[in-house]
Amino acid sequence: MDERVREHAAVLVDWSARVEAGENVVLSVGPDAHELAVAVAEELGSRGANLLATYSSGEITRAYLRAHDGDFDGNPAHELALLENADVYLSLGGGRNTSATADVPGEQRQAYNNARREIREARLGTRWVSTVHPTRSLAQQANMAYEEYQDFAYDAILRDWESLAEEMAQLKTLLDDSDEVRLVSDGTDLTMRIDDRTAVNSAASVAYDSHNLPSGEVFTAPAGTEGTVTFDVPMTLRGESVRNVRLEFDAGEVVDYGADQGEAVISDILETDEGARRLGELGIGMNRGIDRYTDNILFDEKMGDTVHLALGRAYDACLPDGESGNDSAVHVDLITDVSKDSQLEIDGTVVQRNGTFRFESGFDG
Amino acid sequence: MDERVREHAAVLVDWSARVEAGENVVLSVGPDAHELAVAVAEELGSRGANLLATYSSGEITRAYLRAHDGDFDGNPAHELALLENADVYLSLGGGRNTSATADVPGEQRQAYNNARREIREARLGTRWVSTVHPTRSLAQQANMAYEEYQDFAYDAILRDWESLAEEMAQLKTLLDDSDEVRLVSDGTDLTMRIDDRTAVNSAASVAYDSHNLPSGEVFTAPAGTEGTVTFDVPMTLRGESVRNVRLEFDAGEVVDYGADQGEAVISDILETDEGARRLGELGIGMNRGIDRYTDNILFDEKMGDTVHLALGRAYDACLPDGESGNDSAVHVDLITDVSKDSQLEIDGTVVQRNGTFRFESGFDG
Repeated sequence: MDERVREHAAVLVDWSARVEAGENVVLSVGPDAHELAVAVAEELGSRGANLLATYSSGEITRAYLRAHDGDFDGNPAHELALLENADVYLSLGGGRNTSATADVPGEQRQAYNNARREIREARLGTRWVSTVHPTRSLAQQANMAYEEYQDFAYDAILRDWESLAEEMAQLKTLLDDSDEVRLVSDGTDLTMRIDDRTAVNSAASVAYDSHNLPSGEVFTAPAGTEGTVTFDVPMTLRGESVRNVRLEFDAGEVVDYGADQGEAVISDILETDEGARRLGELGIGMNRGIDRYTDNILFDEKMGDTVHLALGRAYDACLPDGESGNDSAVHVDLITDVSKDSQLEIDGTVVQRNGTFRFESGFDG
Repeated sequence: MDERVREHAAVLVDWSARVEAGENVVLSVGPDAHELAVAVAEELGSRGANLLATYSSGEITRAYLRAHDGDFDGNPAHELALLENADVYLSLGGGRNTSATADVPGEQRQAYNNARREIREARLGTRWVSTVHPTRSLAQQANMAYEEYQDFAYDAILRDWESLAEEMAQLKTLLDDSDEVRLVSDGTDLTMRIDDRTAVNSAASVAYDSHNLPSGEVFTAPAGTEGTVTFDVPMTLRGESVRNVRLEFDAGEVVDYGADQGEAVISDILETDEGARRLGELGIGMNRGIDRYTDNILFDEKMGDTVHLALGRAYDACLPDGESGNDSAVHVDLITDVSKDSQLEIDGTVVQRNGTFRFESGFDG
């Protein structure tokens, strides 16, 4: 076994999920994430945690959803009980075909998701962490050779997380102390309110309210969005290529949209529910171990010199106690490059210009 | 997809497990059983059942057990809750190496199993069915080419189960109505009492108290065994080759034994506990789709023209209500060929000669 697989498992169990003896862990394994699952099982065994492995396959989901009449039972009791009794949920992504569910009708997917809100809540109620095992399928999606992709993925995953957390804390402080964010770039001039919001220093650990490995972003839950934004980072959504999505907001809601490619997917997403037309997240990428787009949201949205916005569900961690933010069955991230001709303003002060933060050397105030 | 995979899935869901709309199904998937899992997911979707897939991998079990200190938590709540809320449990065996857990110490395995009694009971409390997907690893164990093994496995699995169940019912009736069975063959003359016992018509369906696919045997729980038996079907037991085991019984208990190969394994088994020296099962193979031994008990013991006896634990289904049969920590099946120079007598009447039953054409009374 590649020693980096063992290091990945150790970071996941130790830094990210903080697993302790006696805890009940659900390990969700993708079909090609087997090797990482073996390494994680070893970590869990050595810590005396209790392991149950589930199998997460796009091909199984596709077969099930296409055959079902669409009248899904709400929150099946066996799956709900499993998650309600779990302390930790570790998702090891890694399929054999990133388009495995491409021909599942959108309404079928939506009906399935809508029937599973309590299950989703129960999973989000655990100390959950999502990561991926670098597979040939992900390498292909990234237009990279397999070993090249492994190097890329482990550069992103095996960071000095403690030191990155300290760097990101500076941006979190700026956001926590202010009321409004403005993003200006080519095709973008967007204003969002962040009064009373708390930014998350997403340092790839549940100890930081951060649930992705790799991570490396600072995010918050915006409100009252006004203006236009263009997402120029190409990506695949629900099996479809999506390019240059443009959204126009008024009073927090999408009032117009378009795309050079994949407009139908955006339309499907916006139609999910009322919350799908509002933003649930503003995220600022700060992981400079990620040096290119690979059409994988887990990596792309964390990349330095990018900003992303998500349609749909907001994270509770960003909201005042007892207040619930935007609610939706979806959470779909879209990304824009801010390395050129861009600026990010917080309460009128430019804090990032062309990708460089004001607390970094080379910042051009 | 090979059409036989779909047929296998349909038989499993429909005939074997009798899955209905709204039922909660746990689908346990071996690493190389993916294709069958996809076909089963389609069947479950079309029936409106609720699917949760778990991942069953010898390599994960090995890594976990070898890393653990051996002081296992009893019945982890998340796994217990999953099974207690399941209606159906479908196990799709199919690993990449039948020796994947060969270097896990026996005491570690036993400590793990002992800590999971309630989980096991909960699983046995569902409508559970075990089957296997024909894999390269199983083909190798059977000394067969892959496609040759697929043909073999589907011949065994894709029977006309309804018609076989009717045929087997005739043997069940004969056994239920009588007191004594005598088996005579080369190296064998054995008498067993079956007063008050109920035979199981094991027709690969929970509707028949039968939990294996393939199945195709009629079995009961014998007592008061007298005489000698020779098991001439070669097999691997606990990783050791075993050939021509001979057991001599007096008043139901093994009083002498020998073997051409693997005598030490037989000795180990007999020493387990008191119940290990008594028979827990007499089974009569009636699946003529199985035409050769493949060193896999799921198939071998069901083969037509064979009889098997198990040392150890008896099944409750064969016993009068409230009576408990032979108890033991083991249940080890041993098989004898009855295709030649053999006869099976029930209360003094020959019911099978050289593999042919008296209710079949060609029977030589």
